[in-house]
This record gives sequence, C-alpha cells and structure tokens, in this order.
Amino acid sequence: MKTVGELGEDGLIARICAGLAKGGEVVVGPGDDCAVVGSGDVLTLLKTDAVVAGIHFLQNEDARRVGWKAVARVLSDFAAMGGKPGELMVTLALESTTPVRWVGELYEGMANCLKKHGGVIVGGETTSLPEGAPAMISVAGRGTVRASQVVTRSGGRPGDAIYVTGTLGGSIRGKHLDFTPRLKEANWLSQHFKIKAMMDLSDGLAKDLPRLARMSGCGFTIDRETLPLSKGVSVEEALGDGEDYELLFTSGDEMEGTWAATFPDLPLTKIGELTREKDDHLEGGWDHFKR
Amino acid sequence: MKTVGELGEDGLIARICAGLAKGGEVVVGPGDDCAVVGSGDVLTLLKTDAVVAGIHFLQNEDARRVGWKAVARVLSDFAAMGGKPGELMVTLALESTTPVRWVGELYEGMANCLKKHGGVIVGGETTSLPEGAPAMISVAGRGTVRASQVVTRSGGRPGDAIYVTGTLGGSIRGKHLDFTPRLKEANWLSQHFKIKAMMDLSDGLAKDLPRLARMSGCGFTIDRETLPLSKGVSVEEALGDGEDYELLFTSGDEMEGTWAATFPDLPLTKIGELTREKDDHLEGGWDHFKR
Repeated sequence: MKTVGELGEDGLIARICAGLAKGGEVVVGPGDDCAVVGSGDVLTLLKTDAVVAGIHFLQNEDARRVGWKAVARVLSDFAAMGGKPGELMVTLALESTTPVRWVGELYEGMANCLKKHGGVIVGGETTSLPEGAPAMISVAGRGTVRASQVVTRSGGRPGDAIYVTGTLGGSIRGKHLDFTPRLKEANWLSQHFKIKAMMDLSDGLAKDLPRLARMSGCGFTIDRETLPLSKGVSVEEALGDGEDYELLFTSGDEMEGTWAATFPDLPLTKIGELTREKDDHLEGGWDHFKR
Repeated sequence: MKTVGELGEDGLIARICAGLAKGGEVVVGPGDDCAVVGSGDVLTLLKTDAVVAGIHFLQNEDARRVGWKAVARVLSDFAAMGGKPGELMVTLALESTTPVRWVGELYEGMANCLKKHGGVIVGGETTSLPEGAPAMISVAGRGTVRASQVVTRSGGRPGDAIYVTGTLGGSIRGKHLDFTPRLKEANWLSQHFKIKAMMDLSDGLAKDLPRLARMSGCGFTIDRETLPLSKGVSVEEALGDGEDYELLFTSGDEMEGTWAATFPDLPLTKIGELTREKDDHLEGGWDHFKR
C-alpha cells in the first residue's frame, strides 16, 4: 500500500485537488498561496497554515517566536497574492501538561506580529492532544485583495524575468522564526508593476520555483551565480534550505531602480527567466513527506 | 508552573480572549460558535475546528467517517449561528507512513458531507508529523449568514424557554461520526422565530448549557425528567457524553406545533428555562484539558 511519504507532498496535493468538487464563489482554487473567493472590487483571500513542534520549531523554543512565526507565515501568503491580512482564527492543539505561561507567550508573539503588520484574531479553538504528541498551532482566516491586484502562481509567461527579494538560505539560524512578511513590498509591487506570477518562498527556491513555473505552464533558467546568498551560505543551501519567506515573482517590467529607491534596505535580484521549455528542475528543497 | 490541564479549557479560552486586540470588521468576536465579520445584509462566518486521532476518532476508524465528521463539525457551527456553509480549507497533519488510500477515503467522506449539506473545499495544507504523532485534520473556512438572522450565545434572557433538537447521549456508539449538521433546522428556526441564543452541543449539555447561560448573563433551570434521551442512555450520560451535535437554543416563542409539522422525524424538546439567578451548574460534560 503506497504511503504519502512515497507519493511526496506535491503528488499528494495534486491527487487531493483533482478530486475536489467545484462551486461557490471561487476565483482562485486550491494550489496557490491562498484561495481567492467572492466578487466585486475587493475579493476575499482564504488561508490556513500550521506549525508543528519538532518540524517547524523546537519544543524548547521561545513561545513568543513560535507565535510570531505561526502568524507571519499566513501573512506572508496574503502578501504573495497581493493582499492584506484581515481576521484570523487560531487552533491550539496542546498536551494538558503545557504551561499556561507558554500559551500566554505564544499569543504575545502573535499579537506582536499582527500589531506590526495588520490583522486581528477573532476566534479559534483549543484541543487536547494525547500524551507525548507534539504541539500544533494552526492559523486560518481571511485577507482582502483588490480584484485588480490579485497575483497568482499561474500568470507567468516565457520571457518574464524571475525576481527574488532579500537573501536566500541559512534561515535555520533564526530567520525562520523572526522573518518579516513582505506585505508592504508585495502591495507596492502589485500596485506599480505588472507582476505576472508570485509566491512566497517557504520550501526553498529549488522546490518553489518549479511549482511556480509549472503552474504558469513554463520552464525556467536561473543564473546560479546571481543568487542573493545569506551570509555564509552556499548556493546549494540557498536553493534548498527553505523557510526564506521572501517573495518570488516574475514580471516583464523593469523595476530595480524604483525598488532600490523605495526599499533601500532590501535587495531585489533578477535571478533568471521563464522559458518555453518545461523540462527544467532543481535539486534540493523541502518536501514535507519525503525525507 | 500552572498547566493548561489545571486551568481547564474554559479558563484557558477566557484568558486568551481577554488578551486579544480589537479591530477589523468584527461583529461577533471570540467565544461563540463562529466569529462574524463584515458589513451589509450578508455577513461572513469564520470558523476553524480540528479532529485528532485518539481524541475525536480512533486510529483504525473508517477514514470516510472521519472525513465526514471533520467537515460536519464545522457545518454544525455555521448552523448554530443561523448561517450556511461556504468555502472551506483543510489542513492535514500526517505521518509519512499514512497510506495514500486513507487520505483518499478521508476526502471522500468530506465530499459526501459537503454534497449533502453545502460548501466546497477551496484549498488547505499538508504537513508531516514526527513519527508516532496522531493524525490531525483541521477544517477552517467561511460561511454566510443574513445579518437579520445572526444568532449568538449571548442573546438569551430570563424567562426564555430552553430547547434541544434530537436526542442526547450515547454518541460514542456511532453518532459522533455520522451525525447530521442541523443546518436546515437552524435556518428554519432563525427565519421563522425569534431565536434569542443558540449553540451546537459538542461537549455535552452539562458543559454547554452553562456556557450559553453565562454568555447571556443568565442562570437556568432544567427539568431532568424531560431530557430527550437516546436509546438506552441514562440522564447522566445525556448530560455528560457530549458530541451530540444537536441545537441548543432559547426563545420566548411557541414553536412545537409548527416544528413537528415541518420536521416530523426530529424531536424538539423544551427542557427548561433561563433564569435571573446565575449560580446554577451541572455536573458532567467534556473538558478538553481536565480529565
């Protein structure tokens, strides 16, 4: 009997999505950073995302940083669609032996992130876990996006330049907990330029760029020499470490000059181009089920 | 250091809610069956809910029944607010060794429930779990409710009659997996009568009725002799078993005759009254953290 580990994350998701019924006010369905639903000038973004002890954070990690990360991951997905955060719900699955103080600090971290970047917690759920099970924090909710500003993974076209914000790799040294969701930057980009396709880099460029290219029906070439490396990081690590939470996007517009004037502290790097050929791939990146 | 087990579920939630920032388009915030957000004639319901192996279902349970339950619990909460299901997202947290077939059957069960009761899956997330950790399925999303039909837990007043639909207790024999979310009934009630307060019975009447009364600033009396018992169930079990997923509501209107004509197969029972005194309590019911 085949396991999800043998099938891999992308295979599992493809299989799930193929079986889903259509309907509702769905503008963008499964497979993108968020679902987009509704109608009119302002659409609703829906997102759910979970962090698990032992996978996304260490059991003994500062709960404030865990809370920040749990919320910032969702905000990063709202950003990747060109949108803004709205109302969120938090599901806590905890052992009964969890200290109350830990929960308090977790919410402190979430509140800090929301205060800085927008969004509000309007509810959620608590559930107990069997003894020894790892804590899980799931954040779900809605954001908003102007219909004219929606950016998906699938709008890329051959000849588009491929860009990334910030630097890649080495997130395990701390950035995976303390990163800044690129809301300001993504909103600015989608307001001022024709951004064809966009996503946030959560599983590493080697995993995420092929996903974006595939959804856009394109291949890609990248110049490994141009990759913006985090300090002390190799090209392989920049490709494969994951959890960069930077924006990956494609566009036919020139924007480096205006970008540098607007966001002087955050690099923007052209790393390659979408192509007509579809057989490219990159080694590395994070698969949730294959190890 | 105090643990969440010592504090208990209601204490933990109260503590979390007290610390949350206000803001956004929030009509009903934390503490009800759903959050209500938005403005205008039709409002948005937001809900998230999780089921965990070993707590809400057995590891070796038919995955179709688990899928049905995971989705039906959320639909039951939309019902309790007087609303209807919209677009949902599913988070799967699984070990890598989970058979792909199990996931397929899980989605089959979810699809069956949505086909029958409305709603559509528009996305979600998969995450791996450390070896030995129990599977978790979290369902989050939005529903809709007419602004004129919103029912909360807090609208009850002294003198209101307290009603429950269906029968109580003994859900462990199967109903906790196969229950019918009372969408049709709740919509009919909130359209035709002045329903003051409503919730769905998930943790047992002994836990849930005091919650509703507390949110309404009331006490309550119930006539234990009138409780509609499931077959072969004692009054204590009807009070404490939990997972009935029936509607608990209060109203000053008489509705038994019309109800019986409209829903001949589902009992509606007046079990008591909201009172001015606030010191009532019931023994029993399910606390997620206290055992």
